[in-house]
Amino acid sequence: MTSLELPLVDDIDDGAFAARLQQVLDNKTKPVGALGRLEALALRVGCILGSQAPVFEAPQMLVCAGDHGLAARGVSAYPPEVTAQMVANFIAGGAAISVLARQHGLGLTVVDAGVRGTVPPGPADAAPTAVARLVRPVGPGTADASEGPAMSPAQCVQALELGRDCVRALPGNALVLGEMGIGNSSAAALLTARLTGAPLDDCIGRGTGLDDAGLARKRALLAQVAARHAGACGPLEALAAFGGFEIAALAGALLQAAHERRLVVVDGFIVTAALLVAHALRPAVLDACVFAHRSDEAGHARALAHLGVEPLLALGLRLGEGSGAALAWPIVASAVALLNGMASFEGAGVSGPAGSEGGA
Amino acid sequence: MTSLELPLVDDIDDGAFAARLQQVLDNKTKPVGALGRLEALALRVGCILGSQAPVFEAPQMLVCAGDHGLAARGVSAYPPEVTAQMVANFIAGGAAISVLARQHGLGLTVVDAGVRGTVPPGPADAAPTAVARLVRPVGPGTADASEGPAMSPAQCVQALELGRDCVRALPGNALVLGEMGIGNSSAAALLTARLTGAPLDDCIGRGTGLDDAGLARKRALLAQVAARHAGACGPLEALAAFGGFEIAALAGALLQAAHERRLVVVDGFIVTAALLVAHALRPAVLDACVFAHRSDEAGHARALAHLGVEPLLALGLRLGEGSGAALAWPIVASAVALLNGMASFEGAGVSGPAGSEGGA
Repeated sequence: MTSLELPLVDDIDDGAFAARLQQVLDNKTKPVGALGRLEALALRVGCILGSQAPVFEAPQMLVCAGDHGLAARGVSAYPPEVTAQMVANFIAGGAAISVLARQHGLGLTVVDAGVRGTVPPGPADAAPTAVARLVRPVGPGTADASEGPAMSPAQCVQALELGRDCVRALPGNALVLGEMGIGNSSAAALLTARLTGAPLDDCIGRGTGLDDAGLARKRALLAQVAARHAGACGPLEALAAFGGFEIAALAGALLQAAHERRLVVVDGFIVTAALLVAHALRPAVLDACVFAHRSDEAGHARALAHLGVEPLLALGLRLGEGSGAALAWPIVASAVALLNGMASFEGAGVSGPAGSEGGA
Repeated sequence: MTSLELPLVDDIDDGAFAARLQQVLDNKTKPVGALGRLEALALRVGCILGSQAPVFEAPQMLVCAGDHGLAARGVSAYPPEVTAQMVANFIAGGAAISVLARQHGLGLTVVDAGVRGTVPPGPADAAPTAVARLVRPVGPGTADASEGPAMSPAQCVQALELGRDCVRALPGNALVLGEMGIGNSSAAALLTARLTGAPLDDCIGRGTGLDDAGLARKRALLAQVAARHAGACGPLEALAAFGGFEIAALAGALLQAAHERRLVVVDGFIVTAALLVAHALRPAVLDACVFAHRSDEAGHARALAHLGVEPLLALGLRLGEGSGAALAWPIVASAVALLNGMASFEGAGVSGPAGSEGGA
């Protein structure tokens, strides 16, 4: 593997600091623990941002796009040219993620990490929006992983560095990640099986909507691809073998964001596969992450179990783009708003449980 | 029962209109069905508001508060005076629901439907906020349901009418419901068992945090209460027998909102118990509702199964106040934003699935 200088990712101190934060939460005007998962969420954000009164500044969506050589073999319900078309749609403001970023005031940066062909101009009927676009393709889509490695080692490093550079260039202390790439649920399945040890068949699903015949084709092809790259066991070797450019860029973005102690909202199956790579390289990257949406893709359950995490939402989405992450964003923001905005028992003159002195 | 003039609630036409709306969704730039539960949500809102491009106007939170005579018997982890203290906290802006209403730009109206004692002035350390307060108590808390009916028939009607009047006075086409009342998970358990036919024990939980001994006391007491009012089988009879004023006001609010075709976001166990009453009176009220948060209270699962519905969130909240409904609100808003804001396949020049003509 070409030399890659990995950023340091410090372990987050969730000991004494988290205990103090939990005390602050316990003294809010509510029964202890009554905010459920929002309490752990507030702790997570406070620990990452290193503040008992964390404030999100200029939260950013980063959507990485890339094409997959394997897509030509029919592993997706959609033809490969949809990647470029959807990138144009993101920029023009007509895609789901464009709408959700606008709704929540998230900056939106779309990265062409390796989209095949030319991105067409945007749609006529979509609302214009202020989005940034970064065109720095590593190549015109990855190579066909059934014939050889999807990326060369140099391309793999280049894509990781692209993701790191994107984060360095973005303002803010929170990053909401998404992706686009026809065929990338195949790469995610292969990576998830390889990096979690789960059986490949348990990691393969219908993606955005394969029928039974399509699913059977996908299973057969991915088994071949996995066998061809049986020796690619390390995270970077597996990433280079299976692709894609957008997944590598996301892995780089995750490492850089955790290094800078930005909070990262992880979307669904594909972004979680990128996290598996980053986590294998720097386990502490996990401390920076909150998980947005549980995908119906079988592989996602395997990846989540491997990481020992539970997403906030399960809304049956199978869109990608970062749509789950964007939908979870206001819940993350609520956790912080509650930590900062709720009164204490003393301040509010509210009695604690019967027989206690205050809310403890 | 004293005469109550129930509002008419028309069945919502989810036939031809919903089919047209689904076509609009299917032609958005995404795989068919890829927005998961947000698609059904968008359909629901469109059908209620009678528009293929629905717009929420001035969405309102309505939080109804009342005290329960039964609370003096120790069915809650908290003493009864907390109801009044928390109402003051809602108004002053220091409670969870105050924070969430501010975050999402929801108008907040807090109704004293029958709080015992005087509501103290608000806390000193909470941010001020613009909220409305309506003081129209039906009585100083309900009577002790273990000794007789919680409300007289006249009080029951009065509380229902209070809820209807609240909705009539509020602007907007969407209503986000919440509640406060120490002891009200007991009333909700009794109502749920009576109106769904579920065994009472399966409807009783720890509320905001009873310990094992407290839970055993609650079970024993509620069994007595249920036996005492064994004949109260109709929805209004059960409501009068078990209380409370805030639950009756919520039932009235639900009926009026559905009559006016406002969308209603139903919070957790207590608001769902109010809906059981409204639904037994006017089944079509269900068409106006979306369900926010699955409570860990056992009775909520029974009520949801009876209604055949599934909440959007399961975040382990056990706070009430409408906190689950407020957290779900941005997801409801997202469904509408996606319906209105996404480009179509034709407009965006995006290809449909391989072998198809467009996104169908």
